[in-house]
Amino acid sequence: MKKKKKKVNAAILIIGNEILSGRTQDKNIAFLSNWLNLNCGITVLEVRIIPDVEKTIIDNIRSLSKKFNYIFTTGGIGPTHDDITAQSIAKAFKLKYKYHEEAYKILENYYGREKFNDGRKKMAKMPSGAKLIYNPSSAAPGFITRNVLSLPGVPSILNSMIENCKNFLVKGTKVHSKTLNLFTVESNISKKLETIQKKFVSDVNIGSYPFFRLGKIGVSIVSRSTSLRKLNAVNKKLIKLVNEKKIKILKI
Amino acid sequence: MKKKKKKVNAAILIIGNEILSGRTQDKNIAFLSNWLNLNCGITVLEVRIIPDVEKTIIDNIRSLSKKFNYIFTTGGIGPTHDDITAQSIAKAFKLKYKYHEEAYKILENYYGREKFNDGRKKMAKMPSGAKLIYNPSSAAPGFITRNVLSLPGVPSILNSMIENCKNFLVKGTKVHSKTLNLFTVESNISKKLETIQKKFVSDVNIGSYPFFRLGKIGVSIVSRSTSLRKLNAVNKKLIKLVNEKKIKILKI
Repeated sequence: MKKKKKKVNAAILIIGNEILSGRTQDKNIAFLSNWLNLNCGITVLEVRIIPDVEKTIIDNIRSLSKKFNYIFTTGGIGPTHDDITAQSIAKAFKLKYKYHEEAYKILENYYGREKFNDGRKKMAKMPSGAKLIYNPSSAAPGFITRNVLSLPGVPSILNSMIENCKNFLVKGTKVHSKTLNLFTVESNISKKLETIQKKFVSDVNIGSYPFFRLGKIGVSIVSRSTSLRKLNAVNKKLIKLVNEKKIKILKI
Repeated sequence: MKKKKKKVNAAILIIGNEILSGRTQDKNIAFLSNWLNLNCGITVLEVRIIPDVEKTIIDNIRSLSKKFNYIFTTGGIGPTHDDITAQSIAKAFKLKYKYHEEAYKILENYYGREKFNDGRKKMAKMPSGAKLIYNPSSAAPGFITRNVLSLPGVPSILNSMIENCKNFLVKGTKVHSKTLNLFTVESNISKKLETIQKKFVSDVNIGSYPFFRLGKIGVSIVSRSTSLRKLNAVNKKLIKLVNEKKIKILKI
């Protein structure tokens, strides 16, 4: 009998007025989602972007942490007054919000005792019992509270810390994908595509996304599945459809 | 007595596996959020990104449409099998999902009767009673169901349609913002910043965002308020702080 494949999922909670207002273009969603799938076989099933408002953070942490295997938060763990992720997560789980001994030492060591001011000390305050996610770029650690992993909002720092999350995560089955970029319009292939999708409804997810390139319109057909065998079967049917309709493929 | 300012809010619901999987970098959130604030005084208070799954779309439409003044959906209104936004919104509000007469005519006229195939006809199917958002780029209209405005996912098409949403929206009060880019670290100013924020707690929102530019680290201080007068008062205090601490300002 074949080993049953395990599905592990996650949600991303982006905490920050700067993303919500449109001032800053988020870069963490695509990075986290790709990394989690490729490295851990974890599928991101929902993303939320919310403001730096305590009640909103608490409500979202409570509801998402029940619904998904893991929650990744980004943002709100720096030294300023608008960084309220740690205290909000503590409240969400009814935990104390206090200095994490090791985090305190790391930061004191990094800044030197004299320059270790109140703002910097704040970054050592976490929900009681939190585990640290070490930060090779700027010392201030992220932390894990139950199934919630809290990372900073600055993409370069987040990227440098992500490998340190790996050991805390239960691995799932990687989702493989294949993309065909076709010089055609969606409505030319939509009917056949639906027939193929219906045949593989529980195993392969087929998405269709219009694009504009080299002055021409086209459609990217993206198939995704945990089974490479079934993915190849779908691809074969797609190639047959492409040949029948005499559609040009864009090779990149 | 001064006229009471009206707060109007919105949520954005991005529907699409391609954004969630990290394959495609979203560009609609920042555009919509900026446009809504600048042109309509509408503040985006939450964004969600969800997969092309009917039940998930229905649940989110129901809960968000109760919680916010407007919901903007993007994606899932094309001709293929994975475009299920219209039918899901119909189900969320228990409305019929059927051809919209005017949309049908627009599309039939655009494609010509012979080329108006089933996939293309699908784009004329909407929740019963929906109002059209005209599409100057590629004909297929968006639609409004109660307080939910549904737009396509392709950024260039969405951008071209946004002006046609204006007449349907009740205007609120624009949020003004001022940014100071400082060559300092957050923890150097966090204490003073908190004091200023506390003084203006109900009127001005002050955010602090680290940046890296010209090989140096810095902090952007972004103040946001519906009152220009209070925004200027905060800015004066910030400039005083900057001068006291002898911090260099980055002019861009």
